[in-house]
Amino acid sequence: MPPAAESHPPLRVALLGCGVVGTQVARLLTEQADDLASRVGARLELVGIAVRNAAAPRASSVDRSLLTEDAEGLVARADIVVEVMGGTEPARSLLLRAIDAGAAVVTANKALLAEDGPTLYKAADAAGVDIYFEAAVAGAIPIVRPVRESLAGDRVRRVLGIVNGTTNYVLDQMATTGMDLEEAVKEAQDLGYAEADPTADVEGYDAAAKAAILASLAFHTRVSLDDVAREGIMSVTAEDVAWAAQTGHVIKLLAIAELREGTSVGATAGAPAGVSVRVHPALVPTSHPLANVRGSFNAVFVEAESAGELMFYGRGAGGAPTASAVLGDVVSAARHRVLGGKGPQESTYAELAILPASAAVTRYQVRLEVDDRPGVLAQVAHALAEHGVSIEAVRQPTAPGVSDVAEPGVAELLITTHAAPESALSATVAAVAGLEPVRTITSVLRVEGA
Amino acid sequence: MPPAAESHPPLRVALLGCGVVGTQVARLLTEQADDLASRVGARLELVGIAVRNAAAPRASSVDRSLLTEDAEGLVARADIVVEVMGGTEPARSLLLRAIDAGAAVVTANKALLAEDGPTLYKAADAAGVDIYFEAAVAGAIPIVRPVRESLAGDRVRRVLGIVNGTTNYVLDQMATTGMDLEEAVKEAQDLGYAEADPTADVEGYDAAAKAAILASLAFHTRVSLDDVAREGIMSVTAEDVAWAAQTGHVIKLLAIAELREGTSVGATAGAPAGVSVRVHPALVPTSHPLANVRGSFNAVFVEAESAGELMFYGRGAGGAPTASAVLGDVVSAARHRVLGGKGPQESTYAELAILPASAAVTRYQVRLEVDDRPGVLAQVAHALAEHGVSIEAVRQPTAPGVSDVAEPGVAELLITTHAAPESALSATVAAVAGLEPVRTITSVLRVEGA
Repeated sequence: MPPAAESHPPLRVALLGCGVVGTQVARLLTEQADDLASRVGARLELVGIAVRNAAAPRASSVDRSLLTEDAEGLVARADIVVEVMGGTEPARSLLLRAIDAGAAVVTANKALLAEDGPTLYKAADAAGVDIYFEAAVAGAIPIVRPVRESLAGDRVRRVLGIVNGTTNYVLDQMATTGMDLEEAVKEAQDLGYAEADPTADVEGYDAAAKAAILASLAFHTRVSLDDVAREGIMSVTAEDVAWAAQTGHVIKLLAIAELREGTSVGATAGAPAGVSVRVHPALVPTSHPLANVRGSFNAVFVEAESAGELMFYGRGAGGAPTASAVLGDVVSAARHRVLGGKGPQESTYAELAILPASAAVTRYQVRLEVDDRPGVLAQVAHALAEHGVSIEAVRQPTAPGVSDVAEPGVAELLITTHAAPESALSATVAAVAGLEPVRTITSVLRVEGA
Repeated sequence: MPPAAESHPPLRVALLGCGVVGTQVARLLTEQADDLASRVGARLELVGIAVRNAAAPRASSVDRSLLTEDAEGLVARADIVVEVMGGTEPARSLLLRAIDAGAAVVTANKALLAEDGPTLYKAADAAGVDIYFEAAVAGAIPIVRPVRESLAGDRVRRVLGIVNGTTNYVLDQMATTGMDLEEAVKEAQDLGYAEADPTADVEGYDAAAKAAILASLAFHTRVSLDDVAREGIMSVTAEDVAWAAQTGHVIKLLAIAELREGTSVGATAGAPAGVSVRVHPALVPTSHPLANVRGSFNAVFVEAESAGELMFYGRGAGGAPTASAVLGDVVSAARHRVLGGKGPQESTYAELAILPASAAVTRYQVRLEVDDRPGVLAQVAHALAEHGVSIEAVRQPTAPGVSDVAEPGVAELLITTHAAPESALSATVAAVAGLEPVRTITSVLRVEGA
């Protein structure tokens, strides 16, 4: 053990919240006390755990003498405040109070950061204290530190994340077993992967909060939850999944943050510069590293100018994995206390424009049912061309067991477009839907990562 | 731009080496000067580039007025010294001189760190300066920072890395095209992925240096190149690759560092505690995330006690990707100069035993040709049991197009063992080879990640 561990007084750690993550943080702080002291150069002393109801039942590993309902009093006597209570209030007030009192703060609270992160970052900068939040984006996966620090000498172009384990599990089950969405959600609930009310997951709210944080980090720009265009997985059908497989894709719910530079040539001429932030199901080629992210795992794929393609993979949720990320942050903050110095700041010096959803540039795969007679394909192709959308491929497959088109005289078309602004694509789909021989637009999915 | 960028004097950066990586580092320092100044809070001024021959031809992007043959003089007038010259000397002397003079150092030199990293870490600790080496392990992939910092509150159990792009390309080509090793190496050379003399790659020396650094980081223990058991890919045949596919595996050259705790029960009873560090080709199940790491990409898979499984994926080599990692380190070191403080130290407080190669616990897949008559399988199984090695599966396949056994009266056996110490496994293979009905042991491959 280095001599510093003996010479520096213990650092007082306050824990706000004692749920699934808090219980694990408390356990690790105790179990790994000696290792942590060695790495930090001082002992970490858990001085209290703030809870709403100190009398409520707890895991047996929790030292009940540490429980307190006086969160404010606890914060006042801590060097490092760890917030794992969730929700925006009282979490925000308590963290601001901690920062004002000169404590370093560690939070796993994605909702709070997505809503009001910049307020906290600014307060921490002004007070000269550390704020860390590795666990808020993708659980155990180190993504905040790599983007903030490892890529600090590079330029991030695009971030594609599978950041919600519940929806990834559901889509993966649909792909591997052929079950439909409702069955897969039910199964995820039975296994404890999905909440009784799965809205936050399946409607993409959870992913959108993480997309906002990722976009802020990657582009040094304030992005809040309201800036994120959001579409959940509820409209994804078993047929969509089967079609995806037939065309060499899998469907993933992606959190996307990408830089769009103003361009003057090509299909996207005139597209405005800025950052596009969105969450939606997308077709991902099976050869893409994200396509192999199975079950409830998460992954974040980053494209940077010099580094090229990077991917970070691991457990995006769960008590112990999230606690691991929290503890890593606690060690960083504690080392700065002992050795002097401060972690990276959220300098928001590059306030890029947040583009509206309609300005995103993407590719569409449109599936539609049309009258089965000559000339229809030409008519559809003409409608696309009129909107400046060029076609990459049209398939008119007979897909036994995949298509539910049984009606005679009806053919199914599968059109994949080249990249074009979302506004042009959606206008095109509307125009195609209005064509006389088009019976119905069965599905519209975006293609990413190709 | 934050006010700090104006108020802090520029930081002087010295670059040692102007090869593929150095050229890119110099370019990025110039091209991204404004962004870097914003992130650091001070401008980074490239004050010189030390080269062996200042008159030699250079890329046009290199400012020749910065070139100098006086590396020592350059080091003396720098705040941050970036070493990308490679080799152990004069790199080591120059870095030690820089550290003594109080400069922060950033190095991409895996050979030097694998041979003598602890000398440098100690010197930096004693002088109170930063030493960063993200680019030395896996090029652009952030792996040093996540292991040193993000997992500082966790316990790493095992690291499995694909850390050599050349061999991964070669093995991947063998798997996807069926070509043999020599052809694949030749192709890699033609494409510039392999050197004219590919020894350092194909014999596993490059991977072994990285394994030593990874093991040191993950287990806070000094591991040098000499501690790494090393086996290259030269013995891997097209037939091995085809057999691997038949049994649901791919062959990867893995750098492995794993913690072995003393055990008193099961097949590995009596196995000593310590760290096993090795490089060898291994069968990896196709469902494992490492199996999908294609072409010249690298990936490092980490198993930690709380975080669970993590994987870091990206470009392990190349000028721009490596320069990205170097720049990230430069920014971290520079921020510490501006804001005060110091990066993490290589505290070697857990000096675990380095286990001999024979103590590694692994699984074998053994392919052998035997007389095709009743009772042979029982005889082979008996030999394994006698050495305490239990069999997971025996296959006696007829493998058209895969096996080259054409001789009548000869059968091929494929035996997969359960986990056992390497010493027991190798003794078993020797015993099996000596059995009367055994014609030849065609191949012995380890199985990892299952």
